[in-house]
This record gives sequence, structure tokens and C-alpha cells, in this order.
Amino acid sequence: MKSSRTQPSLSEIASQLGARLHGDGDQRVRGLATLKDAGPDQVSFLANRAYLKDLPSTRAAAVLLHPDHLEACPVPALVLDNPYLGYAELSRLLDPLVGAHRPGVHHSAVVADDAVLGEGVCIGPNAVVESGVKLGDRVVVGPGCVIGSDSQIDDDGFLHANVTLYHGVVIGKRVILHSGCVIGGDGFGFAHDGSGWRKIAQLGGAVLGDDVEVGSCSSIDRGALGDTVIGNDVKIDSQVQIAHNVQIGDHSALAGCVGIAGSTRVGRHCMLGGGVGLSGHLTISDGVQVTGMSLVTNSILEPGVYSSGTGAMENSQWRRNAVRFKQLDSIAKRVSRLEKRDSSDT
Amino acid sequence: MKSSRTQPSLSEIASQLGARLHGDGDQRVRGLATLKDAGPDQVSFLANRAYLKDLPSTRAAAVLLHPDHLEACPVPALVLDNPYLGYAELSRLLDPLVGAHRPGVHHSAVVADDAVLGEGVCIGPNAVVESGVKLGDRVVVGPGCVIGSDSQIDDDGFLHANVTLYHGVVIGKRVILHSGCVIGGDGFGFAHDGSGWRKIAQLGGAVLGDDVEVGSCSSIDRGALGDTVIGNDVKIDSQVQIAHNVQIGDHSALAGCVGIAGSTRVGRHCMLGGGVGLSGHLTISDGVQVTGMSLVTNSILEPGVYSSGTGAMENSQWRRNAVRFKQLDSIAKRVSRLEKRDSSDT
Amino acid sequence: MKSSRTQPSLSEIASQLGARLHGDGDQRVRGLATLKDAGPDQVSFLANRAYLKDLPSTRAAAVLLHPDHLEACPVPALVLDNPYLGYAELSRLLDPLVGAHRPGVHHSAVVADDAVLGEGVCIGPNAVVESGVKLGDRVVVGPGCVIGSDSQIDDDGFLHANVTLYHGVVIGKRVILHSGCVIGGDGFGFAHDGSGWRKIAQLGGAVLGDDVEVGSCSSIDRGALGDTVIGNDVKIDSQVQIAHNVQIGDHSALAGCVGIAGSTRVGRHCMLGGGVGLSGHLTISDGVQVTGMSLVTNSILEPGVYSSGTGAMENSQWRRNAVRFKQLDSIAKRVSRLEKRDSSDT
Repeated sequence: MKSSRTQPSLSEIASQLGARLHGDGDQRVRGLATLKDAGPDQVSFLANRAYLKDLPSTRAAAVLLHPDHLEACPVPALVLDNPYLGYAELSRLLDPLVGAHRPGVHHSAVVADDAVLGEGVCIGPNAVVESGVKLGDRVVVGPGCVIGSDSQIDDDGFLHANVTLYHGVVIGKRVILHSGCVIGGDGFGFAHDGSGWRKIAQLGGAVLGDDVEVGSCSSIDRGALGDTVIGNDVKIDSQVQIAHNVQIGDHSALAGCVGIAGSTRVGRHCMLGGGVGLSGHLTISDGVQVTGMSLVTNSILEPGVYSSGTGAMENSQWRRNAVRFKQLDSIAKRVSRLEKRDSSDT
Repeated sequence: MKSSRTQPSLSEIASQLGARLHGDGDQRVRGLATLKDAGPDQVSFLANRAYLKDLPSTRAAAVLLHPDHLEACPVPALVLDNPYLGYAELSRLLDPLVGAHRPGVHHSAVVADDAVLGEGVCIGPNAVVESGVKLGDRVVVGPGCVIGSDSQIDDDGFLHANVTLYHGVVIGKRVILHSGCVIGGDGFGFAHDGSGWRKIAQLGGAVLGDDVEVGSCSSIDRGALGDTVIGNDVKIDSQVQIAHNVQIGDHSALAGCVGIAGSTRVGRHCMLGGGVGLSGHLTISDGVQVTGMSLVTNSILEPGVYSSGTGAMENSQWRRNAVRFKQLDSIAKRVSRLEKRDSSDT
Repeated sequence: MKSSRTQPSLSEIASQLGARLHGDGDQRVRGLATLKDAGPDQVSFLANRAYLKDLPSTRAAAVLLHPDHLEACPVPALVLDNPYLGYAELSRLLDPLVGAHRPGVHHSAVVADDAVLGEGVCIGPNAVVESGVKLGDRVVVGPGCVIGSDSQIDDDGFLHANVTLYHGVVIGKRVILHSGCVIGGDGFGFAHDGSGWRKIAQLGGAVLGDDVEVGSCSSIDRGALGDTVIGNDVKIDSQVQIAHNVQIGDHSALAGCVGIAGSTRVGRHCMLGGGVGLSGHLTISDGVQVTGMSLVTNSILEPGVYSSGTGAMENSQWRRNAVRFKQLDSIAKRVSRLEKRDSSDT
């Protein structure tokens, strides 16, 4: 799977992005870089005014930018109303992985006789595809992946190396799963019999919508009875834990190390910062943002930004304040008492 | 490993669960669902009064319930004193994975000549079993698993796909290990030589008792000198980190994303909520519960429920309060001063 | 890969460690243990005065210790100024993994024709080495590892089983990567187009310096444009998430479950406690320590120890105080008001 870097010309890029080109369109480029770092065979972009200072001295082959900044650009320009979206599209155009996987099943892969493979499927070395699996067109299964029995991956799915799907997992179109992630493992369900734990078999499934991406080493557990459901266009970073029967609405994004406990429902267009924890059985409405490492133990029914915790400070200062936190209820009562005496004095 | 779902009759279920059957025992069922979702070929259960409202309209083939609720049940009933335990047992009865693995070593697996395999062992495609390994009867080693040299897995162990055991790991009976988990990796041990780090080889082992379950992508490190020891019937969720020389007492349960630092000893029947962190070298007594995302930096010597942190709130409100946290010691001193002046006034 | 435990004599150990031997040098030992646990064929060490009480009754073959404690030692002694460093060195001497891997490529491994393998390389069963990969001398690639195209691992690298490297990853000398870790996965980069997310291809790389160690199930993402860079002698524990374009300075150590968001720069000789979170785009100066589970949302420009959060306490007490945290700004204002009235009274 040798990478085959494409080298489009500037006019090809302009046409692909719907950008207006200022300058020579014949030059070919081989990559993307920041305004500061770009060499004469790389394109750059200006999407944030903070980097405007780097524009006059850039050596890039061309710069993606907003019409307002065209005049200040010392090199060819690709003019767009939204240069950040243009950058996103160009990055995919220059991605060496795109088209790098030739169709076919590697001889070392183990594919069940009754697995159904779409057109152009690529199955890498030492991958395992169990019985009853259905893979859509152009699905890539990386080296060492294991696809459990009766699972389905719709068209254009891309599984990087060493991904694990349990049995009966359902994956939508254009889904990207990164190495080490595990979809459909057992939820954490046990009944206590008075002296110890009895396992509750996790009989539900895990369903991922279209355009979902899941980061490396993340876990999405299968449901206890019904399914764990990840909506369309949900983006999940690395080291995330999603427990059984969680539901995530379309277009939500979960940063690294997020943990969501069982049966919680997260709305659409939500954003959870790194390390956020949501307790089980909560409802989080559409459009909620939670800042990094906050713990949410109650449902949030209004869109908005939510937080918990304390800011970091120098340790000796923190110690003094953290001790007082343990006295906070008593401090509050003492203030009330002072206020009462104060008002009775008057 | 095609799933082979069993379809027991209601009287077979009643007999298996020790339940009293009300209704026709010949009907066969193919699954479990909630009272609301169950169709006429699925069993349901009522274990929580909150769902009593769904009982009258259920379409389930039968409902597992307490004698108190028999009269309100519109369909056949399986009567039990503890319907939740009955549900747990029935879920296992209907688990399509049970019995789905035929004994044998897949031709693509690499098994050392001197490995000892018990009766009915199943080793999946592309698994690796190194020298000196001993597998008990009916152990299942999933596709892509690696069992390091001299490790042992006792009877009825079940390793899902892509589990890694380092060398010399010892696993009890009926242990379930989920995909991506790693048992026996090096603990985090380094000596500082004044300018940088010198590795301390981790020469201890990792020992898991009977009936342990470990979730996907969790890490249990080997000891530096002695062993890391996980007791019997300990349940560990996904994304958990257990450092070298930790000891966990029997029947304790650790929810997702828990992290336990080196040499800490957790008692029996403890419950750690999601994302809880325990510092190193602590002692946590039997019967301690710690709520989600709490950090514990001191030993806890009495059973009870423990917590840290602040609840989540709307961000602008949180900002105002979090700033005051940094002034908390000063606020407390000012309150004391006011009290002194107040009492001297009187 | 059967372990082949070495059994050096005490005089060989003394010579290797540069220690002064008191006692019979011919005795051979087979391991290391604490003063309390060591048997007559094991060496022990005294590096912490807390364990001085165990010295008189030790049954160890010999004890590594400081000259000050030689007189109290009832058995042969290996005398060193820094017994802890001596312990670290001896632990590596007795590590059964050292030298346990015979050079060669296992027949089940899949190695691209154009991969370049140094002298003494060992590639384990079912490993995959893609096109353009370069492995230095004596590199060990464990079973089930996948090395993506064009990646490089310099001399003496050791990859335990089931490690994944994406394409174009660069790894220095003597690096140890533990099972399940993933190096070079995509950073979490998306542009919002007003209705949903557009992926930003992650075109940068991931570069690890010499003597880096990465724990099990940790993720180090590749850069969006430039590289994610881990300096020399950086030690990273298990379950750690390092986002795109992060830079970590030489000799820093990150404990388990740490998460670092995109583009943050951590200095040299920093220590991040377990579960610490750093927001994105921060600068953390050299010599900063952050205590466990603290969240850092602003740059830290001075060396020192930093913390956030509240200590754990009994839950009913915590509830009372946590409620007051939400009133903290109001409490502070009420104290100020009382002070004003108090001073106007006087």
C-alpha cells in the first residue's frame, strides 16, 4: 500500500475547489503547509486573521484566501469566500491515502466463504472477516482488522489497521475507523445476587450512521437490549468510551478521552470537550457544549455552554483553597449568621 | 463463528430460571426486549417499578416479574422473587455467542509446539500462542489475539478478538477479556539519574482471579517486583488503566475510564464510578464507593460513599464561581475576622 | 520467544553495576524482590529509608544499599552511592525479555519486498510490514504489529505485540512501544460547513525521539500539517492521548490517562500526573509538574507545581459543599458587603 501522492496543478485545484485563481495555473504542487513553512511546491491558506502577519513573506506556491486579503498576497492566490473549508477540501485532495489501496483480498486474510464483498473492496494482510459479513463497495479493511460475524459496513468505509468489530455491528457509508478502536464490545452490565456479580449478556447491537469517524483506541459498546446508536456525521476522537445504549445525535463531536455512561442520550450538534464525563440515563439537548473535563450528572435541557471543576493554579495556593472547599458549607452558614446579626444591629 | 441463536420454550425457560410459569409453556421465544419494545416472540421483564406503567400494554411473549405484579400482567408470566437476576440468567441463555465457537485451532493461527491446550479449546484465525502457554478446557482465543510465553488461562476463559497477554500472565477460570485490552504490559517505572530516565524492568506478573471481566481497550500492567493482582469476580469496564502492583479485592467493580496508580490496594466489594482516579500507594477499605470522576489522593479507611469535584453549571455562572475558588482561603479568613470583630462588638 | 532468565553471579552484578561487593561473589541469583519477599536466590535493594526496618530480617542473597546502611545488613551487600539507580540497572540485567528474541522473520509475517531490514531484526508471527518501511538493527516487531508504509524505526526499537504504526511515522533509537498503542493516527480535524463536518486530511507526521517509551493502548496522533513531535527520553504511560501537532520536550514524563489537546507545547523535564488534561494551543514551560487529574486551560510560563480540583470527601459532606460552590460568587460579594458595613460602623 505504497502511498501515491498526487501532484495537481493550481488550475486543477481552483476548478476542484470552485476558487478564483490569480496567477499561473500550470504549476504543480505536492502538499500543504502553513504560510510560514510552505515551500515553493506547497499550497498554503489564510483562514484566521492571526496569521495575516505571515502572508507578506510566504514562499508558498499559492495561498487559499478570502477576497479581502488578495491584495496583500505576494504569490499566486486561490480566492474563496470560505478559505477554511477550501483548506479542508484541498487537504483531502492531497491525501496520499486516497486511492492508495488497490482492490483485492490479501492472500493472508481469512475471509468466510459466505461473506459478501462489494465491488472494489480491499482486505489487507492478516485481516479476518467472519461468516455472514457484508461489505459495501470500495470498503477498505486494514491489516489485522477483525470483522465479527453478521456485521455490515456500507460503501466506502475505511478501517485502518487493527480495528475490531464484534458480531452484528452495523456501519453506515463513508465511515472511518481508526486503529485499535473496538465497536460492539459488551456493555458493562451485571446483576448483584447478594454476594457477587452475575453477567447480563449484552444482546443489543451497535449502529453507526453515515460519515461517522472514530479515533484510535476508542470503545463503543453494544446495547444490553436495544442498540447503541451513533447518528450521522458524528465525529469521535481517540480514547473515548461510549457505554451501552447511548444515543448520539447527528453532527455531534466528542473530543479525546470523553466517557459517556449507559443509556444517556446526547442531542444533535453537541460538542463535548476533551475528558468530559456524562453520567448514565441523562438527556442532553441539541446544541449543548460542555467544556473540557467537566462532569455532568444531571440532564441538560437547554442549549448553551456548560462547565464544572476549578481552574489550575500554583499548588501551594491550590492547597489552601482546596482545604477551604471542604469548609464551604460552614463558611456560607457563618456569612448568613453575620448578615442576620448585622441587620438586627441596625 | 456464525451465531446460532437458541429458541427455548417458555417452560424450558421457567425450569432453567426456577420460575413459576403462568400461561402456555410451549411457545418458543427468540429474544429479550423491554416491555415497550418486546414483540410476540420476545420475553420481557419488570425489575424496576418505574416501568410498571408499560406492563398493561406489553406485547411480549411473557414477562419475568415479581408475584406482586402478576395480576397486572396481560400476557403469560414467569414469576420470580428477583426478576432482575432472572433477567441476567435469561440473557445468558439467549446469548448467541454461547456455544458458537467450535473446538479447534484455525490453520492460520500460530501455536507454539510446547503450548498445552485443554479439551475443547478454540483458537481463532491469526491468533498467536507462544511457547510455554497453558490453556484450560474450553478456552476460546479470538482472532488476532496474542498470548505471551508462559501465560496461563484457566478453564472457560473467553478472549474476544485482538486481546494481548504479555509473558507469564496468569488468568483464572471463566474470565472474559474484551477486544483491545492488554494484560501484563510494563508498569511505568523509571529512575532519574539526574539528567534523564533509566528504565526499571518490570519483573513482576499480572494475576487475574476467577470470573473477572475486563472491558475493551483497558490496560492492566504487570508488577515491578511482585504481581498486580485482580481478585475473583472483579468487573472492569472499558478504557480502564490499572498500574503496576495494584491489588483489587474480590467482587469490586470499576466503571469506564477509571485510573489506578501504582501499588494502591482496593478492598472487596468496592465500586468506582466512571473516570475515578486513585493516587498511588493508597489503601481503600472494603465497601467503598467513589462517585464518577472523583480524585482520591488519600487512603479511605471506612466504607461509605466518597466524592470530589464540583457539579456542572452554565458556563458564565461557572466562570464567576471558579474565579472565587481561587480566593477561597482569603474569603474564609475574612469571615473569621468579621466574626471576631462581631463578637468583640457584643 | 521462550524467556531465558539469566542467572548472574554476585561478582558479575557488582562489576556490571560498579558496586563494591561485601560477601561471597560466586553465588548466582535468579531475580529481584523486596527486602521482605526476597528468597535466598534473589537480590534486594534499600533505596528508601521507609524500608530500613525490613533490612535486619531479610533473607535476600544480597542487598543493594548505600554505604550508610552496610553495617545493618545481615547478608552480602552491593554497596553503591545511588542504590535506586543500581536497582534500575540490575532489573534490566535480570529482564527475561532481553535477548529472548532470535533474529529472523516469522513465516506468517507479511513483509513488503521493498522494506529494508537492519541486522538482527526480529519480526514476529502475523506482523505486517508495509512498503517502504525501514527497520534499524536489532529492531523487534512483535506478533500482530502493523507498520504502515514508509515508516522508520531506528536501531534497537522494541514493539510489543499488536502495536500499530500508520504510514510515514518516524521512530528513534531504543524506543519501546507497548501493546495496543497507536502512533500516527489521524488528528481530530474538521471544518464546519454550516450544517455538518468536513474532514481535514491529516497530512503531517508523528516523530518520536530516541529512548521514548509509550504505554499500552495509548494514542499519538499525526499532525494536521506539520508533525507531532515527542522529544528524546520522553516516557508516556498507558491510556494516554496526544493530539495532533503537540510537542513534548526531552525527558518529560506523562502518567496514565493524560490527554493533551492539539498544538500544545510541553517543555523539557515536565511531569504530568495521571489523568491530567491540557487544553489546546498552550505553552507549558520546562520543569512544570501538574498533579493528578488537574485541568490546565492556560499556558504555564514558570516552572513549579500546579493543581486544580477539590479533594475527595465523604459524599454527604461533599454534596453540602458542592452546592455552596455554585453560590461562591454571591458569598464572596456578601462578605465584601459585610466588611464595608463593618468598617463604616467603626
